[in-house]
Amino acid sequence: MPQFRQNFITKEWVIIAPERSKRPDQFAKGTEKRKERPRHDPKCPFCPGNENQTPPSVFTQKTADGWRTRVVPNKFAAVNPELSPLRKNVGKFLTADGFGRAEVVIESPRHDASLATMSSAEVRDVLECYKNRYADLSKDEKVDMITIFRNHGAKAGTSLEHPHSQIIATPIVPPHVRQMIQHAILFHDTYGQCPHCVMLEEELKQKERIVFEGKHHVVYCLFASRTPFETHIIPKRHYSKFDNITKEELDELANVLRITLKKIYVGLGDPDYNFVITTSPVSDGEVHYEHCRLVIVPRLTTPAGFEIGSGIFINIMLPEEAAKFLREVKAD
Amino acid sequence: MPQFRQNFITKEWVIIAPERSKRPDQFAKGTEKRKERPRHDPKCPFCPGNENQTPPSVFTQKTADGWRTRVVPNKFAAVNPELSPLRKNVGKFLTADGFGRAEVVIESPRHDASLATMSSAEVRDVLECYKNRYADLSKDEKVDMITIFRNHGAKAGTSLEHPHSQIIATPIVPPHVRQMIQHAILFHDTYGQCPHCVMLEEELKQKERIVFEGKHHVVYCLFASRTPFETHIIPKRHYSKFDNITKEELDELANVLRITLKKIYVGLGDPDYNFVITTSPVSDGEVHYEHCRLVIVPRLTTPAGFEIGSGIFINIMLPEEAAKFLREVKAD
Repeated sequence: MPQFRQNFITKEWVIIAPERSKRPDQFAKGTEKRKERPRHDPKCPFCPGNENQTPPSVFTQKTADGWRTRVVPNKFAAVNPELSPLRKNVGKFLTADGFGRAEVVIESPRHDASLATMSSAEVRDVLECYKNRYADLSKDEKVDMITIFRNHGAKAGTSLEHPHSQIIATPIVPPHVRQMIQHAILFHDTYGQCPHCVMLEEELKQKERIVFEGKHHVVYCLFASRTPFETHIIPKRHYSKFDNITKEELDELANVLRITLKKIYVGLGDPDYNFVITTSPVSDGEVHYEHCRLVIVPRLTTPAGFEIGSGIFINIMLPEEAAKFLREVKAD
Repeated sequence: MPQFRQNFITKEWVIIAPERSKRPDQFAKGTEKRKERPRHDPKCPFCPGNENQTPPSVFTQKTADGWRTRVVPNKFAAVNPELSPLRKNVGKFLTADGFGRAEVVIESPRHDASLATMSSAEVRDVLECYKNRYADLSKDEKVDMITIFRNHGAKAGTSLEHPHSQIIATPIVPPHVRQMIQHAILFHDTYGQCPHCVMLEEELKQKERIVFEGKHHVVYCLFASRTPFETHIIPKRHYSKFDNITKEELDELANVLRITLKKIYVGLGDPDYNFVITTSPVSDGEVHYEHCRLVIVPRLTTPAGFEIGSGIFINIMLPEEAAKFLREVKAD
């Protein structure tokens, strides 16, 4: 029986309409096999030896004779750090020059690496890049939103093979983000609690959507998942700004993220996916109502006209089934 | 130079970051050639002769010995008309049984037909189906939102070849839709005008994003287009409910829609696309602040992690260039 479910935070609705014929393991069969990649590609601008093909690095984790990670400004960025963030009118319409800072996190010197199959120490290096860059970009007074995200595969919007994630810092916090925060503020003002903390408590109580739990983090499939296997990693301790993560929490997050991505990699056949770190706007500072988290969206289905028009996502996979499936996939 | 642009209605932002290397006509080269389809496919449930493979029709336009269009309940619907729309609690979370009515508009007996290459009279038949069904579904007291949409091609979320569109009626108006309306109400209460009427006036004044203009409709590329060639068809007369369209307007809309889709078909190589008719919630009735319109979104690029996280779409095509290109494509 199909059902509507409301997202506890955003108040948006989804329709959960499981296709009876489709078992979780069948998603893996639908996943296109990823092209075999070489360990080193001399033509890849992100491979060692081609460092001069990218703008100079803004953060590098070095080894004795090279590097483990490099963060470089995005050469093909959709935003430009030289511009002004001031709004301007074009007749009755509002615009602004495309100020922003866009960076690429080159996650490994190995062309064929993947977060899902790296060691925890290697994933930790990547998270360390995020934390360093988040803290540094936050200092730019023109920046108000920092989006850290990863596109894995063509269906997730990238054709670049070399493992990388991206950071885009913009001067604008759009309604899409602000409205979610307004709902969280209203909840906080009403109940005196962070809605994300309350949701986490409820998920831990209901248990059936929990994939696994660490000392500091919980991995679960959202009650109102928009897509099959939408998976969230949420810290148990309340903090809203990503760079307020402690060293011990970062250590664990590396391992928790690695295991989660490996479960998806093994169980669903290395599907294309996006992940995003959701954190509060820079100028809001550390607040009681927002809660840092990492959202993974495998790209297994295609949003269509109904989603575009209504904003209601139709999800053909019961989140409880998705969590059960991921729980059982071995990934150590 | 990249720029932010704000949607006049929703207040959402996009980044327009044209890739200098990509001219409008190059999008056509990137479009996969659509598979040749037979005029009649004996295995297709929507082809004549297989009427018993669908639930009984709720609306049919007949010919002497058959039909021109048929509207049938969707056999594989994500919603179910037998259920209750009442909200229920699951712990602290909110849910409802998946009440709704989902219908398929079979647009032609011909398996190989396409709105872009049909006659205006044939497109008019399809719009007549929409109008009839909208009016009829509106009478169901449990229905509050009717989404009429079309998915064309795999990237737009359909694998069914036979030309069809869909209608889903739900009891829920989600924040995605309601927040847009709230912005429109605020504008109306402030300026005493429908924001869509004001936007249309502004577009006609600025001219450069107009594709073409009929007696009753304007076709233009939105100032803050989310995707390359996002194209809107908006009626000049103010009405908010789709079934308030007049006979004369419906006649013209058929021709305007056909020409618009043909321009996209010819100019961009028959790309996958979605379209949606945006109309006010049923229980709101005819209102001063909402404005019926048809939104066409070609699926030429892939929203990625940044879009998922921030809600800010990066559009690599200047809407003025898109409009200029579509203006020049011959389609009569």
